[in-house]
Amino acid sequence: MIRLRLLLELDYDVGQPGGDFIFNIHAAHTARQVVLQELLTLNQDVPHRIDTDPATGNRYLRLGARPGPLRLAYSATVDLLHHKAWPASIAEMPVAQLPTSVLGYIYPSRYCQSDRLTSLATREFGQLWQGHSRVQVIRDWVLQRTAFTPNTSNATTSALDTLVDGVGVCRDFAHLMIALCRAVNIPARFATGIDYGADPALGPTDFHAYVEAYLDGRWTIFDPSGTAIPMGFVRFGTGRDAADVAFATIFGPVQSSAPRIQIEALPGDDGQLEMPWHCPEALSTDP
Amino acid sequence: MIRLRLLLELDYDVGQPGGDFIFNIHAAHTARQVVLQELLTLNQDVPHRIDTDPATGNRYLRLGARPGPLRLAYSATVDLLHHKAWPASIAEMPVAQLPTSVLGYIYPSRYCQSDRLTSLATREFGQLWQGHSRVQVIRDWVLQRTAFTPNTSNATTSALDTLVDGVGVCRDFAHLMIALCRAVNIPARFATGIDYGADPALGPTDFHAYVEAYLDGRWTIFDPSGTAIPMGFVRFGTGRDAADVAFATIFGPVQSSAPRIQIEALPGDDGQLEMPWHCPEALSTDP
Amino acid sequence: MIRLRLLLELDYDVGQPGGDFIFNIHAAHTARQVVLQELLTLNQDVPHRIDTDPATGNRYLRLGARPGPLRLAYSATVDLLHHKAWPASIAEMPVAQLPTSVLGYIYPSRYCQSDRLTSLATREFGQLWQGHSRVQVIRDWVLQRTAFTPNTSNATTSALDTLVDGVGVCRDFAHLMIALCRAVNIPARFATGIDYGADPALGPTDFHAYVEAYLDGRWTIFDPSGTAIPMGFVRFGTGRDAADVAFATIFGPVQSSAPRIQIEALPGDDGQLEMPWHCPEALSTDP
Amino acid sequence: MIRLRLLLELDYDVGQPGGDFIFNIHAAHTARQVVLQELLTLNQDVPHRIDTDPATGNRYLRLGARPGPLRLAYSATVDLLHHKAWPASIAEMPVAQLPTSVLGYIYPSRYCQSDRLTSLATREFGQLWQGHSRVQVIRDWVLQRTAFTPNTSNATTSALDTLVDGVGVCRDFAHLMIALCRAVNIPARFATGIDYGADPALGPTDFHAYVEAYLDGRWTIFDPSGTAIPMGFVRFGTGRDAADVAFATIFGPVQSSAPRIQIEALPGDDGQLEMPWHCPEALSTDP
Repeated sequence: MIRLRLLLELDYDVGQPGGDFIFNIHAAHTARQVVLQELLTLNQDVPHRIDTDPATGNRYLRLGARPGPLRLAYSATVDLLHHKAWPASIAEMPVAQLPTSVLGYIYPSRYCQSDRLTSLATREFGQLWQGHSRVQVIRDWVLQRTAFTPNTSNATTSALDTLVDGVGVCRDFAHLMIALCRAVNIPARFATGIDYGADPALGPTDFHAYVEAYLDGRWTIFDPSGTAIPMGFVRFGTGRDAADVAFATIFGPVQSSAPRIQIEALPGDDGQLEMPWHCPEALSTDP
Repeated sequence: MIRLRLLLELDYDVGQPGGDFIFNIHAAHTARQVVLQELLTLNQDVPHRIDTDPATGNRYLRLGARPGPLRLAYSATVDLLHHKAWPASIAEMPVAQLPTSVLGYIYPSRYCQSDRLTSLATREFGQLWQGHSRVQVIRDWVLQRTAFTPNTSNATTSALDTLVDGVGVCRDFAHLMIALCRAVNIPARFATGIDYGADPALGPTDFHAYVEAYLDGRWTIFDPSGTAIPMGFVRFGTGRDAADVAFATIFGPVQSSAPRIQIEALPGDDGQLEMPWHCPEALSTDP
Repeated sequence: MIRLRLLLELDYDVGQPGGDFIFNIHAAHTARQVVLQELLTLNQDVPHRIDTDPATGNRYLRLGARPGPLRLAYSATVDLLHHKAWPASIAEMPVAQLPTSVLGYIYPSRYCQSDRLTSLATREFGQLWQGHSRVQVIRDWVLQRTAFTPNTSNATTSALDTLVDGVGVCRDFAHLMIALCRAVNIPARFATGIDYGADPALGPTDFHAYVEAYLDGRWTIFDPSGTAIPMGFVRFGTGRDAADVAFATIFGPVQSSAPRIQIEALPGDDGQLEMPWHCPEALSTDP
Repeated sequence: MIRLRLLLELDYDVGQPGGDFIFNIHAAHTARQVVLQELLTLNQDVPHRIDTDPATGNRYLRLGARPGPLRLAYSATVDLLHHKAWPASIAEMPVAQLPTSVLGYIYPSRYCQSDRLTSLATREFGQLWQGHSRVQVIRDWVLQRTAFTPNTSNATTSALDTLVDGVGVCRDFAHLMIALCRAVNIPARFATGIDYGADPALGPTDFHAYVEAYLDGRWTIFDPSGTAIPMGFVRFGTGRDAADVAFATIFGPVQSSAPRIQIEALPGDDGQLEMPWHCPEALSTDP
């Protein structure tokens, strides 16, 4: 069990006549990600509410802010009780056996145009054994063909752009990997959160985007940009792609500052400190 | 109340070693679309099941077919108990008041890249009164700029393509209208079904695609291609765009033939025959 | 007659093992743009040569630089002897009468995908009188639908992007206008240079991009971004689009700084100072 | 020396009020492609003229047709005096040494968006020896990743589409190969013509599209779709991509039929019949 404590601070300058916000910055509630404690503080005394999407466990904070500075601080202590399995034992599920609720994750989405990649994906991955190792091959294929380069992509960059341009950041690696998985009928989704142990060469701790593929009845974690330690991911949201899980969706005249994020590992109830590491097992927090 | 009877026949030639199918050809279950009777017949004696998506009422028939001919016939009698309202009375809902379950329909999707159209949509529609009439203006804008031309688009054609190319079929009109609605924060979704009263100049009765916009707490019907009578739509599925609601998603070596579709109006329990017509009220079957 | 004097300074830092440059920063030689004096100074004593493209009058400076700082200064005094004509008198030329050398300018190019815009352009402009006023309508159509917004586009942005996104800089306005002209069979090309009298609100004097359309046997100037005074354009290059006339094409490890540009009007031989102004006549410097 | 005789018949139905045509169906005049005899017959007695582009040797037949049937027959006897060289001896030319007239062929064009492929091409081909073998590697890379599949592409399909979709016809293979060559600064152009010895499995003799890369001062032939025998290509036109060298560009209401094409090898003046074959040498007809 990994216990992590995170602190997130967001600052905005809200213009007239105010702005509406939808945040996805709460640790998701899943069977294996347990939120022990959490605290949200707001500098404005405005009504707000938190909704939980029953299908994904995503939690959405919604509020209408008044003009002026808006500051949020969110802290949480989270236990990660990963399901672990040996990759060699993990098979894909035939399409015929997929739950209906999972089908949406084999269809194309805004930034993951898998319908265009059927020929390429079938040629590259169609003959491989249908299991965890095939998804790992897809992940490695993306990693080898994409250079992690900040400021080469933007909010409209899609998997096809990343395939062509060969550059991007974690979001772009995730989109391309997802599109390729779906193109061979493997359900895959986009996950966001905070990663303990991100490569410090990439700058201060930031939001992270990664991939979950549905294998053997379970959403299994992959990190296509290879910049972080999957065992240290605190999940905020999952969706079909980045369109679904922006950490902040803002309506109105609002200026943003860079978020400030801290994360640290804590000892568990038994006083033992378990640190995230690059373990060989496949990990899942759902379910 | 409109009572319609529809008959749908689908033929496939399934190759070795068989194929998996997901059909969305059952009339959806909604508060105002009541399925009185229905019958599905299959020429192959294979297991199949029908799942209903609780969020949308979409019904998915799933089966694994053996090699050889596969024939489905689906017939249903459906009562449409439309909610009707005068357009001038119907306002949009502020984003802050949208139900969480509706938020996904303001985000961009595979074929409705609303994130690219913010500037255009704000320039064209941003100053209008925020209600049904604005959505109608968007619908007319699309209709005026797009020529209904069979065989000019394909399964990968998106709203941006249709905006640029100015041609398409009902699917394409729907995608462009949806993208423009979302670009001004109006939730909009893609609906499929069979339309009573389609323009016979467009050929035999076929599947139809249209739009539902979320106004005043209700999904309201629009027909951007202008080829049919909204009061005569029997809804099969709704989704973020065509990626979600193909009438048939096929896995395996399968040849398809053109579907054969019939639809007719029947008298109601009171013996009165009400025919779909171009009524001035806004219509909704959900809720 | 307008007499302008311009000064252009470019600074680069060339890495190992050196870099090759192709510049298009010399005032073009045309029948109506006469270079009275010019001086090029280079801080590196490296061989260089200047080639003139006979078809366009574009002049290309080519050199191979050694590692270290590279500084170029180019100054020129140029007389502009504009051909002027009243717009109402200027007709388009039927395709059948276009010179073969002009045909390439009705075909699509990298950033001007006119083949995609036939339907839109025919709908919007197909019924207009075929002359200068039609091109002016196209120019105004672009200007009204595009917001001049620095840093919204990049070197890969094309006319289709600008049509969809509705934002850009002078390069993007020019590409969209060119694409729409070609879509109704009007030859149009991309022109670059320095503009006397640019809107100072847009920052220091910079390179400018504008359009020339082939009307009545002559390349006529249009300024779709509306940020400058056409009578004050000193032309460097023309091409099918920005792909052909970058002011600097660089091969090798080179860092660039922002160019420094000055331009001023001088008295003519008769001692009279004629300043560029927004004259009502259509202007051409070729031929 | 290869001597080929070709016959080409084109049929159109011209509507009111007539149509303008630009054909590129004459064998090009090059130093090594000599037209011994040619005959053009037209069923309409309308004025027409043939222009030759001095830069490329392309020949353009232009005519204005009256309403009614238009039939052209063009026959020619052509000698191909190929320059042959061993691939291992052929180096690329440094950019600094390229003639100015060749520079346009390293810039991106409508269907060959090389500016997007720099990263991919540098990763895949950047470390290879800079000569004929590198271009051959690019050609093979395209051939291995693209399935020759009629009716999967259309007139707007570009190199980026072909890279993503992995399907196409000879035109699409050529565009992708050209874009990749330019992305590593190898000048490459699009060539059209008729190919003796095309794979009969692909249907009757048709127009063909292939690639010429500028190596060692000479345009060298490559056939990326691998469907034909390069030694048997009779060249009609070359350009930056398909936008420049359509065999027919038509303005007006015109219906087209499929062309009918015949080609055969003839004995030379010495009575010897030399047949095109897959020779190991690199071939060029220019210069």
